[in-house]
Amino acid sequence: MGKNADTRTLAEIGEKEFLRLLRPYLALTTRDVIVGVGDDAALLSSAALKGQHTILTVDMLVEGTHFPAAPNVDWQRLGVKAMVSNLSDVAAMGGIPRFALVSLGLPPAMPVKNVLDLYEGLTAAGKRFAVEIIGGDTVASPHVVISITLLGGLPEGHHLALRSNCTAGQTVYVSGSLGGSAAGLKLLLNPKLRQSLDPKISEALMARHWAPEARVQLGQVLCSICPDLGMIDVSDSLFHELSILAEASHVGFCIYVEQIPYPPELETFCRAINEPIEDYTLFSGEEYELLFCTTLKPEELLQKLGSFSHIPPVTPIGTVTNDAGVVQFTDAQGNRLTLRDRTYEHFNSPS
Amino acid sequence: MGKNADTRTLAEIGEKEFLRLLRPYLALTTRDVIVGVGDDAALLSSAALKGQHTILTVDMLVEGTHFPAAPNVDWQRLGVKAMVSNLSDVAAMGGIPRFALVSLGLPPAMPVKNVLDLYEGLTAAGKRFAVEIIGGDTVASPHVVISITLLGGLPEGHHLALRSNCTAGQTVYVSGSLGGSAAGLKLLLNPKLRQSLDPKISEALMARHWAPEARVQLGQVLCSICPDLGMIDVSDSLFHELSILAEASHVGFCIYVEQIPYPPELETFCRAINEPIEDYTLFSGEEYELLFCTTLKPEELLQKLGSFSHIPPVTPIGTVTNDAGVVQFTDAQGNRLTLRDRTYEHFNSPS
Repeated sequence: MGKNADTRTLAEIGEKEFLRLLRPYLALTTRDVIVGVGDDAALLSSAALKGQHTILTVDMLVEGTHFPAAPNVDWQRLGVKAMVSNLSDVAAMGGIPRFALVSLGLPPAMPVKNVLDLYEGLTAAGKRFAVEIIGGDTVASPHVVISITLLGGLPEGHHLALRSNCTAGQTVYVSGSLGGSAAGLKLLLNPKLRQSLDPKISEALMARHWAPEARVQLGQVLCSICPDLGMIDVSDSLFHELSILAEASHVGFCIYVEQIPYPPELETFCRAINEPIEDYTLFSGEEYELLFCTTLKPEELLQKLGSFSHIPPVTPIGTVTNDAGVVQFTDAQGNRLTLRDRTYEHFNSPS
Repeated sequence: MGKNADTRTLAEIGEKEFLRLLRPYLALTTRDVIVGVGDDAALLSSAALKGQHTILTVDMLVEGTHFPAAPNVDWQRLGVKAMVSNLSDVAAMGGIPRFALVSLGLPPAMPVKNVLDLYEGLTAAGKRFAVEIIGGDTVASPHVVISITLLGGLPEGHHLALRSNCTAGQTVYVSGSLGGSAAGLKLLLNPKLRQSLDPKISEALMARHWAPEARVQLGQVLCSICPDLGMIDVSDSLFHELSILAEASHVGFCIYVEQIPYPPELETFCRAINEPIEDYTLFSGEEYELLFCTTLKPEELLQKLGSFSHIPPVTPIGTVTNDAGVVQFTDAQGNRLTLRDRTYEHFNSPS
């Protein structure tokens, strides 16, 4: 799948040669990057983030937990996802992503080309936002572990986008569409199901899973125009992120399930497998859309967003209520729906 | 061993309760920490590193590679080591360590108390230098993975301590003493050998392995007084770090093996097991001493260091030469020694 053809293993080439092969993927010395890879630590000029607060986030992906065991891995796509998940965290703070550290645990028998493909994905996703890899660590591990640290800036004058900023009366919005990632994953894992659908439908949904977009520009714009912004990215599920916002802000939500935007292909998919669309829009993870709350009403928000480019659609899906901790889902007829959380939880044994 | 007694597993308590238990170990909101743990990313005020360059480093430790598989792990000590290894990287850049992100891969069946003990160690080691944990990620993993990101500052006016700053004619120095960590590890792994020695000797050497010190103050002081500073920390071995400095600076070294400082207990240890002291001083890893080169001569350097507190001894051990890539070891009689690198390399199969 990847573009690299080096069939040697890490054990065969050793650390020194491995680091040499990585060089094309790493930041060069610039005005901002005084020292990149190649010393005890990376060193960024004080000019690099001047007038900005520092945003710092880290995400760990583990083979077997977050992606299948080799040889079923598309390393380049995995690299993209690993970077996007961090970019999305910075986006949810309204920040400008800048520099990444890549910390890898790799089996010595792993083919070098897989690691280079992983770096291809990481740098490709990073390049879209001028993010450079300035350091990291690579160690031996029985299975693959990818931990990406991302450093970004938030201009001093911008509003803060905090999970605790939601207040009763605000409108709840979501960017882009939801549900495609979970449907795409199901298709990726189930070739039979894939064959039963129009390939265009399958491919569009699988792309939603493999090539999600971090809403970096939208996050920054929202922080510049919304004085009261409660925000989070949809990495686990809309259902789950709403409960997190509710807890952090001591508020409740009333969500109109049929207003939640979804990709057009999801409708065909759900009809084919006879499952309700809400099972996907509410519980699909790794969507990386922004879920946010502000007092700006839809007409006002959309008008303000209209003067910026590279902004995805945003859709109002409900309101913030005073009913602390209560997330209420309502259908088009105004009926309250009873839903059980089906978000994947890491440390809970399946029951 | 640790102070925590919670016998439940991570799977039993779930993510939410786990995060609640971690709270005492995490940074509070302060003037510098606008957002710590609890949002999509940590947010540091632009005032936090004002007038400073940013130093960023990450280290990954993997169960089975860097520490034995449970139940033989002392999690608190492991936490100390994980933090010290990062503090040492910042020290080797002359930086002021400030904030940490803790990214963990943990088996769901792991007892909660082990993770809390790990955090005890991380925070204890961090507290010595006022380092606070401002974020991280915790995910399920078949074996334990610990990836620590450390952010620090380097005052704008200070000199840079780069691996590439060594030039012919400089004196080579090392802080503290070397060899104790490898001897301590051997004793930890070999109870019989331990019993054959005076317990005081064994304990002193094992403490060198378990409780190394990061030379944070020394690194900062050196960057304030040495205009030409080539520096690295001894994390793999003195032998290995010299070859790294030689390559980065295109220089050679002449090292007087018998001038390398070692802990007094190492002499007794080496006599007991009938091994030469150089096997330890040259090849012991995880020492976290600073190895540095400067034109300042011993009398001048020691006099300047004398006006600072919390500074370990520094010892001249050789000179930088023009002989690019050649690291030459000499005994007291001026004879050149022929030595094979025995530093542990991650991706090379044992041969």
